[in-house]
This record gives sequence, C-alpha cells and structure tokens, in this order.
Amino acid sequence: MKKINPKITLVGAGPGDPELITLKGLKAIQSADVILYDALVNTELLKEAPEESLKIFVGKRAGNHRYSQDEINLLMVQYAFSHGYVIRLKGGDPFVFGRGHEEITYAAAFGIETAIVPGISSCISLPELQQVPVTRRGVNESFWVLTGTTKSGRLSNDVRIAAQSSATAVILMGMRKLAKIARLFSANGKGNTPVLVIQNGSLPNERTALGTVDTITDIVREKEMGVPGIIVIGEVVGLHPEMNYALAESDFLRQNS
Amino acid sequence: MKKINPKITLVGAGPGDPELITLKGLKAIQSADVILYDALVNTELLKEAPEESLKIFVGKRAGNHRYSQDEINLLMVQYAFSHGYVIRLKGGDPFVFGRGHEEITYAAAFGIETAIVPGISSCISLPELQQVPVTRRGVNESFWVLTGTTKSGRLSNDVRIAAQSSATAVILMGMRKLAKIARLFSANGKGNTPVLVIQNGSLPNERTALGTVDTITDIVREKEMGVPGIIVIGEVVGLHPEMNYALAESDFLRQNS
Repeated sequence: MKKINPKITLVGAGPGDPELITLKGLKAIQSADVILYDALVNTELLKEAPEESLKIFVGKRAGNHRYSQDEINLLMVQYAFSHGYVIRLKGGDPFVFGRGHEEITYAAAFGIETAIVPGISSCISLPELQQVPVTRRGVNESFWVLTGTTKSGRLSNDVRIAAQSSATAVILMGMRKLAKIARLFSANGKGNTPVLVIQNGSLPNERTALGTVDTITDIVREKEMGVPGIIVIGEVVGLHPEMNYALAESDFLRQNS
Repeated sequence: MKKINPKITLVGAGPGDPELITLKGLKAIQSADVILYDALVNTELLKEAPEESLKIFVGKRAGNHRYSQDEINLLMVQYAFSHGYVIRLKGGDPFVFGRGHEEITYAAAFGIETAIVPGISSCISLPELQQVPVTRRGVNESFWVLTGTTKSGRLSNDVRIAAQSSATAVILMGMRKLAKIARLFSANGKGNTPVLVIQNGSLPNERTALGTVDTITDIVREKEMGVPGIIVIGEVVGLHPEMNYALAESDFLRQNS
C-alpha cells in the first residue's frame, strides 16, 4: 500500500489562457493525486495532471452554489489524508478575493504541509492584454483593486472613496452593480472618465466594452454582457488603441506635458 | 541569409523565483533571437534562451543608471529589425510601474508586431508567499498599489489618501521614503497598524521585517535593509504566522465576528 503524505498546494491558474499559469503551478498539477478546481479554471490545465488523479469540480457560480466554502475546506483536507497530494486550483490569484487564505489556514490547522503558488491576477493582466496599463507614468500613480460584492451584499464603502481618488479603479465581481458604481463615479465629477469592461479575458471568446462612466452601463446592456466581468475605471483606459483620445484630452497630461 | 521578421514581446519575469514565470513567457524566451533584461530579472531564465541568442543587460538600478529609457526603446527596435524576435524581459509584471506601456507603444509606432505576456506582480505575490493575503473576507475589502517614488521625486499624493482609507496599501519603490510614509499613516491614527517589508521576495535570500507603522522604520534600520523592497501596510499583515495577534485585536474583526 502506498504511504500517504498529505500535502495541499494552493495554485493560481491565472485569468483563463492555460499558458498563463506559472511553471511552478504546472509542475504542481503534474504531480497531483487530487485536483479540486473552480468554475473560472481553464479545464485544459487538467490534461496536465496524472491520468489516475482525481479531478473534482467544486466551483461556485453566482446564484448557483455547488459546494459551500465549508464543504470545500473539508474535502481538501479529507483528500489530503486519503489520497496524498491535493492541488487546490483557483482562477486568477488565490489571494485576491479568492478565500485562498481561509482555505490554506484551515488545512494548516490539521498539521498538513501547505504551499502557495501565486497566479496571474485578472486585475492587472486583463487590462494589460487589452494594452491598458493599470499605471502609466504621467497619467496616474496608483491602482486600487476592489470588490463590487461584499460579504453583506452591499457596495463596499471603499468604492465610494475610490471614486474620489485619482487611482485607476479595478473592480472585480461588480457587474451586477455596474449602474450603481457608474452613478457614484459620475457624482464625483467623473462622468467622462473612460471605462473598460472585460469578460472572458485572455480567452478566444473574450468580449470587451469601452465607454465612459456615463455611457458604459448602456453599452454593456446593449452588448448583453452578463457576469462575471472586470471593470476598469481611469484615465489609463484612454490609452486603449480604440480610445486613445485621452492622450490629448486628459487634464493630467496637459498639466504635466 | 535568414529572413528577418521583426517582433517584440514584452514578458513579465515574475518576482524573482524563476519558476514563477508563466508558461507563455518561458516559451517566448525559448524562441528569442535577442533578450533585453532588467536588473530584477532572475538570470537563471536566460539559460532557457537559445544558445546563439543575444542576452543584453539593460538594467537600471537606483542611483546607477546604465541605459536610459530612450536608449532601451531604441535598442529594442534596432535589434528587432537587425535580429528578428526580441524579448523585452522585465521583473514582476511589465505594466505595474514598469514603463512597459511606453516601450510597447514605441515599438508599435515602427509597425513592428508586438505582444504582451503578463507576469506575476510582486505587489500581490510577495505578501502571499509570506501567507499575507492582500484581501481577506472580514478584514478588508480592497487593496491599493502605490509607488513611493514618482516622476518628480516627491511622495505621491495618493499615499496621503491611502493613509486615510481602509485598503491594504502595497507600496513599491518606497523604501527610501519609509520613515515619511510611516509618519503619514501614524498621523492618520494608524500607528498600530501592522506593516510587512519584503526584500528579495521569493528568492533564497529573502528578508522580511514585521512591525507596526510606529515601529517599522527602526526595525528596518536595525536589520540594515536597503533598496529595493516592498511595503505592505494593513490589518491583513496581522494574519502573518508570526504576528497573528491582529485576529484578536482587529477592531474590524471584533465588529464583524
């Protein structure tokens, strides 16, 4: 009988394109006994796992919970003790609104060896693949990553503060609250600030919407874009190849050129 | 004579550990004719490049500029026309304070085919590898990534606003201004907020300093930590295994438990 060495590694699968996983993450998958994977993970990656390994979908989709967080935590630990090396494969980076810290802390409490392999987070990489940098010398000096959906379901107060700052705002899990978010930014004098919405980023079926704070809600509705999606609000969006008017119009650039 | 197909790909090398490059980035390196690489790139990655390829160090180190940005832009384009496939290999992610957007825009203006491969950014991954998540359900709802060093050399005004917010603040290129940053946060009633400083993150010679806003400057001085380094300020730092008092002491958790 094979000796069981329980170990759990949390691996970030990246934003969608299977080649955007790290080399370290790929190697972890290749030596897995069990893989517990989420809805946003590209299933192409599962082909890299040993044939005999268990591949278990534990994805939670908005409005259609398949496993609760408690169930996932428990499965992860049970499989580590029963099968050995468990890879907890999560979309993007597991420590960005991913509850990865809760999972790894839970596992460690059983004395199980744990490791973390960061992933390419959608918050930086998806605008990047659209040629929009979250920061650009001469345009802005910071970016702020927020969730549109908090534990309580309300809009985070941080979004209100972000609307007043000059940071690029990158909002994850905010598609259902897009109209409300846009009103907040508009109320802070940012009606003309460019906005980029990205869905299925880095994948062949990627879709985008480009507009301003005042126009984006209608554009997204016309394009019938659903969830999930990422919302990028800031002058840097004006650098998008189809929208580079900002280089001429940005007050910031005028003052700093 | 070999036909030259000029192409430039901007590749993020990740935070240091050579296995934290993406599979796509690795493949790009493996087919390079020329690699232009920065000071923060792990040179282990150059071993993956074809033997006959040119590997050129164009790193800029603080206070010791080797190539100007204009020179790098020009080299990149010249080598694309003279040698073919140029990989511009940059530490972390090339679109996070990396001037990657300037470089790719410059290249595209010559009609050269360009591509971007995102990298693992130190801003999320380095605290993560220290088991500190930039976001944690029940602790905070956003993180804000800032530069300590702006174009003009002054401290970014965004740092002043961040000191007033509840976002985790991740400050890159801020080590020389650590005392000033700490005073700003302290003046906003955050003297006891935990702080993590990371140097050579993800590498065997990684060093860290853990403290609070009011103690971190002395701790970093005693440890004789220089530049570069990343500064993480926020309640999430209290989740660090050597510092988990925050779980008990955090006002946020008390109110929300």
